[in-house]
Amino acid sequence: MKRLVNKVSKKSGLPPGSLVHVGERKTQEVRVLLVEYNEKQFNIKDIGEIKACCTQSFENSVRWIDVVGIHNVDLIAQVGAAFNIHPLVLEDILNTNQRPKFDVWDDYTYVVLKILHMDEESGEIVPEQVSIVLGKDTVITFQEIEGDDFIPVIDRIMNDQGRIRKMGADFLFYALMDAIVDNYFTIFEKLGERIEAIEEALIANPGRETINDIHYMKREMILLRKSVWPLREVVSGLGRGESKMIGEACLVYFRDIYDHTIQIIDTIEVFRDMLSGMVDIYLSSINIRMNGIMKVLTIITTIFIPLSFIAGVYGMNFKFMPETEHPYGYFIVLGAMAFIGLGMLAIFKMRKWF
Amino acid sequence: MKRLVNKVSKKSGLPPGSLVHVGERKTQEVRVLLVEYNEKQFNIKDIGEIKACCTQSFENSVRWIDVVGIHNVDLIAQVGAAFNIHPLVLEDILNTNQRPKFDVWDDYTYVVLKILHMDEESGEIVPEQVSIVLGKDTVITFQEIEGDDFIPVIDRIMNDQGRIRKMGADFLFYALMDAIVDNYFTIFEKLGERIEAIEEALIANPGRETINDIHYMKREMILLRKSVWPLREVVSGLGRGESKMIGEACLVYFRDIYDHTIQIIDTIEVFRDMLSGMVDIYLSSINIRMNGIMKVLTIITTIFIPLSFIAGVYGMNFKFMPETEHPYGYFIVLGAMAFIGLGMLAIFKMRKWF
Amino acid sequence: MKRLVNKVSKKSGLPPGSLVHVGERKTQEVRVLLVEYNEKQFNIKDIGEIKACCTQSFENSVRWIDVVGIHNVDLIAQVGAAFNIHPLVLEDILNTNQRPKFDVWDDYTYVVLKILHMDEESGEIVPEQVSIVLGKDTVITFQEIEGDDFIPVIDRIMNDQGRIRKMGADFLFYALMDAIVDNYFTIFEKLGERIEAIEEALIANPGRETINDIHYMKREMILLRKSVWPLREVVSGLGRGESKMIGEACLVYFRDIYDHTIQIIDTIEVFRDMLSGMVDIYLSSINIRMNGIMKVLTIITTIFIPLSFIAGVYGMNFKFMPETEHPYGYFIVLGAMAFIGLGMLAIFKMRKWF
Amino acid sequence: MKRLVNKVSKKSGLPPGSLVHVGERKTQEVRVLLVEYNEKQFNIKDIGEIKACCTQSFENSVRWIDVVGIHNVDLIAQVGAAFNIHPLVLEDILNTNQRPKFDVWDDYTYVVLKILHMDEESGEIVPEQVSIVLGKDTVITFQEIEGDDFIPVIDRIMNDQGRIRKMGADFLFYALMDAIVDNYFTIFEKLGERIEAIEEALIANPGRETINDIHYMKREMILLRKSVWPLREVVSGLGRGESKMIGEACLVYFRDIYDHTIQIIDTIEVFRDMLSGMVDIYLSSINIRMNGIMKVLTIITTIFIPLSFIAGVYGMNFKFMPETEHPYGYFIVLGAMAFIGLGMLAIFKMRKWF
Amino acid sequence: MKRLVNKVSKKSGLPPGSLVHVGERKTQEVRVLLVEYNEKQFNIKDIGEIKACCTQSFENSVRWIDVVGIHNVDLIAQVGAAFNIHPLVLEDILNTNQRPKFDVWDDYTYVVLKILHMDEESGEIVPEQVSIVLGKDTVITFQEIEGDDFIPVIDRIMNDQGRIRKMGADFLFYALMDAIVDNYFTIFEKLGERIEAIEEALIANPGRETINDIHYMKREMILLRKSVWPLREVVSGLGRGESKMIGEACLVYFRDIYDHTIQIIDTIEVFRDMLSGMVDIYLSSINIRMNGIMKVLTIITTIFIPLSFIAGVYGMNFKFMPETEHPYGYFIVLGAMAFIGLGMLAIFKMRKWF
Repeated sequence: MKRLVNKVSKKSGLPPGSLVHVGERKTQEVRVLLVEYNEKQFNIKDIGEIKACCTQSFENSVRWIDVVGIHNVDLIAQVGAAFNIHPLVLEDILNTNQRPKFDVWDDYTYVVLKILHMDEESGEIVPEQVSIVLGKDTVITFQEIEGDDFIPVIDRIMNDQGRIRKMGADFLFYALMDAIVDNYFTIFEKLGERIEAIEEALIANPGRETINDIHYMKREMILLRKSVWPLREVVSGLGRGESKMIGEACLVYFRDIYDHTIQIIDTIEVFRDMLSGMVDIYLSSINIRMNGIMKVLTIITTIFIPLSFIAGVYGMNFKFMPETEHPYGYFIVLGAMAFIGLGMLAIFKMRKWF
Repeated sequence: MKRLVNKVSKKSGLPPGSLVHVGERKTQEVRVLLVEYNEKQFNIKDIGEIKACCTQSFENSVRWIDVVGIHNVDLIAQVGAAFNIHPLVLEDILNTNQRPKFDVWDDYTYVVLKILHMDEESGEIVPEQVSIVLGKDTVITFQEIEGDDFIPVIDRIMNDQGRIRKMGADFLFYALMDAIVDNYFTIFEKLGERIEAIEEALIANPGRETINDIHYMKREMILLRKSVWPLREVVSGLGRGESKMIGEACLVYFRDIYDHTIQIIDTIEVFRDMLSGMVDIYLSSINIRMNGIMKVLTIITTIFIPLSFIAGVYGMNFKFMPETEHPYGYFIVLGAMAFIGLGMLAIFKMRKWF
Repeated sequence: MKRLVNKVSKKSGLPPGSLVHVGERKTQEVRVLLVEYNEKQFNIKDIGEIKACCTQSFENSVRWIDVVGIHNVDLIAQVGAAFNIHPLVLEDILNTNQRPKFDVWDDYTYVVLKILHMDEESGEIVPEQVSIVLGKDTVITFQEIEGDDFIPVIDRIMNDQGRIRKMGADFLFYALMDAIVDNYFTIFEKLGERIEAIEEALIANPGRETINDIHYMKREMILLRKSVWPLREVVSGLGRGESKMIGEACLVYFRDIYDHTIQIIDTIEVFRDMLSGMVDIYLSSINIRMNGIMKVLTIITTIFIPLSFIAGVYGMNFKFMPETEHPYGYFIVLGAMAFIGLGMLAIFKMRKWF
Repeated sequence: MKRLVNKVSKKSGLPPGSLVHVGERKTQEVRVLLVEYNEKQFNIKDIGEIKACCTQSFENSVRWIDVVGIHNVDLIAQVGAAFNIHPLVLEDILNTNQRPKFDVWDDYTYVVLKILHMDEESGEIVPEQVSIVLGKDTVITFQEIEGDDFIPVIDRIMNDQGRIRKMGADFLFYALMDAIVDNYFTIFEKLGERIEAIEEALIANPGRETINDIHYMKREMILLRKSVWPLREVVSGLGRGESKMIGEACLVYFRDIYDHTIQIIDTIEVFRDMLSGMVDIYLSSINIRMNGIMKVLTIITTIFIPLSFIAGVYGMNFKFMPETEHPYGYFIVLGAMAFIGLGMLAIFKMRKWF
Repeated sequence: MKRLVNKVSKKSGLPPGSLVHVGERKTQEVRVLLVEYNEKQFNIKDIGEIKACCTQSFENSVRWIDVVGIHNVDLIAQVGAAFNIHPLVLEDILNTNQRPKFDVWDDYTYVVLKILHMDEESGEIVPEQVSIVLGKDTVITFQEIEGDDFIPVIDRIMNDQGRIRKMGADFLFYALMDAIVDNYFTIFEKLGERIEAIEEALIANPGRETINDIHYMKREMILLRKSVWPLREVVSGLGRGESKMIGEACLVYFRDIYDHTIQIIDTIEVFRDMLSGMVDIYLSSINIRMNGIMKVLTIITTIFIPLSFIAGVYGMNFKFMPETEHPYGYFIVLGAMAFIGLGMLAIFKMRKWF
């Protein structure tokens, strides 16, 4: 089961800016990738130490340093020192409990977001924290694990697709955020399919697992909301030009992401409303079924109990019971029983009980 | 069943502005209609290629290019090239997952809306996406399928009804949006009738289909809300004059559409509230019925079970049972049974159980 | 049953400003009343044609034209022509689906409101649409039917009560709106009495009609809200002086109406909350009752079923059953039965089942 | 039962500013008290007519006129004339349906509030309306009945406690409002105790009265909210200095009352949330109990009904029933019955039914 | 049980600024600690009287006076006199019913917050009130009991960790608030663990205690919300620089606390949503179980009651019953019973009742 709150207790009491990794350690190796490009050249290499990326290799180049494995506190501290990042920001990078937000500093803009991964087997959504620092001609990304969400961006740089090679670091920054938001659409598509599958099961053959699935999805939605809602504020702030690092020409792209974000938030609300509706459907179907069962019980019981009583009366062992002496007594009583039984059925029919 | 989320995965990873059609392909042919008019003349023709509409045929004319079939990516790209539309806008035109919105660009204003179609047989509401681009003296509309919502506008142009021939492209733009909002009223009228029919069924003879209908309508409302709520923002923005393409004289008309939009939103909320109320009525009517059934069961059972017990006692085969020897024993016992049965009935009557 | 949505389909496709009456035609005759007064004189007459009221009969007079019967499109068109009212406004006057709102035009201010009528027999609330146009020294009112809500205002003019004869058209406008808001208080008083009656029934003897009444009132509240909420915006806008037609001296009166409007909105919310609470009370009382019935059933059944079983055992016809031979067998078994029955009763007593 | 809406019908149709008392007449006598003081002297006397208080008896004095019994319309009209109060304000003073609000006029500020009284016997909360008019060096209060909420203020004036004698009319005004808000804390303390008592009863021994108490308290909260929420707006407006009558030095005291008001609103929301939670607890406890009853019924029935059937079989009077001839038949059947009964018990045990 | 509202009645009627302790007296001793430091020196001592801390012992020092035990009214009054604190602030310090808030005065800023303590045994959350007064180079804290939340700050001062010794009183103020907010994370971690434990119990084996635990946690959340929500406003106000006491350099730290506060509020909302979801799961699991029980009851009853009736018929003592004379009558009836019983089972199987 996913932890609701990550342990932060090991950190409390430390002075602000203390670098401590907070969150589950996902066991991947540490990796630092340097992607450098300008309109004419590009260069991608795995580098061992941070110093290697501190200077531009060619003129007017955009450098993207992609750091995977934020549990390595030393590495993050080195990056911080090399690029002059404030200790409070480094602290936020290391603490995977962050809420999506953006902070505008003098020389750079810091954004923290969540990438969603869906566990193939359990179907559970696992959020991963991604921090992006946008400097003048540098973008630094910090990921918890090595994912494939940024690969299309690398491909575009390598193949000189679209405008990415012609634009600055702010466009790269946009492309990365766009890749993350695209990742949300992919996840929500899968969630939508799952909700539709539950909905079909609900109509066809609702059972205990159906309601458990609904409740599970509702729980996921509660947690997803926490990741997605603040995104709106982040993207809208960037689109309004609150960061000086993002040029005028780029703002329109952020407004495009903003539209996508609103779509995602709409979708999450639609999912929540539909799941609530599904709980109601489930409960009313149980109610209807219970009602049906009660009717069967009541019809059978109310027909046969009086009849059994009559049979019981003539089963009594009194010496003197005139009816039992009568030659047709037995048949008369059987006839009376049939009459009572059918009469009751007729009453139930009239009351539309079946 | 309507898809909750359209597949967008084929698009993720592509650079922004990549033209890919997202959504279900509705199989209609592609058609481009050119409507050109000024106060004195008009000209309506089906054209094969886009170039044909790039120049005005007569002085001070307003040109309306109506493109049906947005799954044809090439065609949309041609229109984009001919009228100098930004790739991000073209991308939005092709992606049928858009949320209603408007974007103000330097030379044109882009609006995306939903037209609602009601499937005649299943009664399902199917949203269709309509994009409108308003230029200086040009309006370009993009529809998924050929519908009849714009026909009254064409008729008005042909018959020179109202002010449309005397006004500019902004008035045409208004007339088209007004036609779309009128379409909503028509759909909501039908939905209102359906809700009233369900309400009557709920009072007359509620059954399993009644509750299914209610839940189905609630689901429709959730999805309609998603199409209708953002409309408010669009129309209010246009009415406030946020687009330079819309002249002062036209703003009052947009404020009129704004009033209609608020009415539609009000209606949707009233429908939602009423449907919620109907679920409550249904559940309480099931509860009341269950209560009634329980009472019948309990009355019959509690009257006859003790009587059957008495009959059982005198049906025992003990050698020595004094009562059975008594000549009037049988009648005394029958009398006692009648007394107990009627006494119980009296108690239930007193407790107002029936 | 009240229609949720009035037919507007006959209107869709027409150019804006087309004059079509939308709504149920309430069969009253058409009537035009002219009330003209200044500080010294007054003149009230039923007039046949609109021209009669186009000129002032005496100096500095305020003219009030009260038009009843808005289904007569020609008449409304004449009024529009005589007083130079914009076609969009005339369209709104004719369309009884309007949401309360006010529109400020250069020469006049247009307000549309709802008067509530309570059907004496069915107790149903029927909203009637009233439009008021306030010009420089003219007030024109448009009603669907002839009501008695404006009679006190006419009386005040005739009897020179209060300040009405000394003030201008804006004060008359205020007096009419005040009369409408007073009408709401009267209606809400009656609704409050009905809710209290239901509440008493709910405590004394809740039945199926009680819950139906509650749901009916909830439905009424949903529809009333739609009429009342927008009123707040209308009155607050007028009180803030958004209409140039209303003089400074009059604004304080509109702020007074504003207070009343807030009171009405508060009341509607209190009613809604109370009705929701009453549904809960009803459901819990049904639950409690069901619980009580179940207990009776269970007590009777669990006491007598084992006893009947014992009687059944000794009613078996085996050749060799030692107990039946015993001279006191019968009495011993009866004693055992009494012991078991009383023991069970004691257990139920202990468990506080009764 | 408290009236939801006071009769206002006798007033509708009258011109604005007509003085009519609206509300229940609480039978107390009419009383006018004049409290006059400056830093050195003070004078408290019961006065018969209003004129007596129109002039200051000593220099720089603050005069407080406390009028009890607003059903006396003549008296209120005299006060209005003596202090030049606008007819609309007098109308509000007489109408006990007012929502708490403040009105800023040129020469005075008018505030209307609710004092809450708790009926000692029934525990019902009865709101009383208090109007306060703050002039330059005069405070006039209008109460429905003679209460003891203002006594501490009089005591402080008499004993020269605190700063009250050194400050102006605005501080007196503050002191009176503070006394009213303190009254709320006292009432909420009692309500909190009652809610805690219900909560304990809910855990110890929930019954029909428990749920009735909860619903009663919920109803009270709905009505209290109506009195308390608008208070926030009143106090915040005064604290922001919207009234010129209140000096700079006094504003900080109003901000203090504002904090108290927020506390009260918080408390009311906490109470509402807790009462909703208590309804849920009650319903789930009824559900659990019903479940338990059903289990007992089912266990007893399902064990004994098959056994009774077996006994019934051997009670049949067929001529030829081989088992009944068998010497141990009876004991074999008894054994089989015991086996079946215990087996069923074992199954229920396994299913954790008891 | 925690008191919902603390007694404030002993205070009502007193003039504003009267110093009275409101709240439960937690029996700890009174203690005043003086911590004084500058970049080079520090000095920590327990002092007996307030005068001892009125002058700085060394140059440019920051003084922190930590007062524990606010039930000692005299002590608080002395502090107030020594540092010239307004009586209204002192009144707030003594009243433990305060809602978190900040007040900006000319010479100091007053903040009141809640520290949360979790009772080790009962797991109950007990809020403690902490007041902080920030002067030019003085910080005064007032606690109800001696806690360990401020110890890390003292440690940092003693060990010269981080920047605290190099910064002014505003940074100390920040460090204390940060310590309090860290305390919230610790508490919420524990609450999250408890909620997860309840969730597991709910799936594994839900019982009466499970639902009681859920309701208990919901109640805690209602009370926590009251402590936590206003914190947001406090921290955001300080971060926006509304207090002149806090220097520019320090504002960024308050924005960091603001992020933490939002995280805490998010968490509380997630907890609330999850607990609501858990109530639904519980209720639906009870419903499902009840449904199962009803099925068993109905199956057993509807199978055996008709069979028992047949047995009863042949147990009647009529003289002439042809079937009983038949040599195979008994076996034919047994066969018929088996057929009916199995047929019923088959019907139930078909209806998917088991």
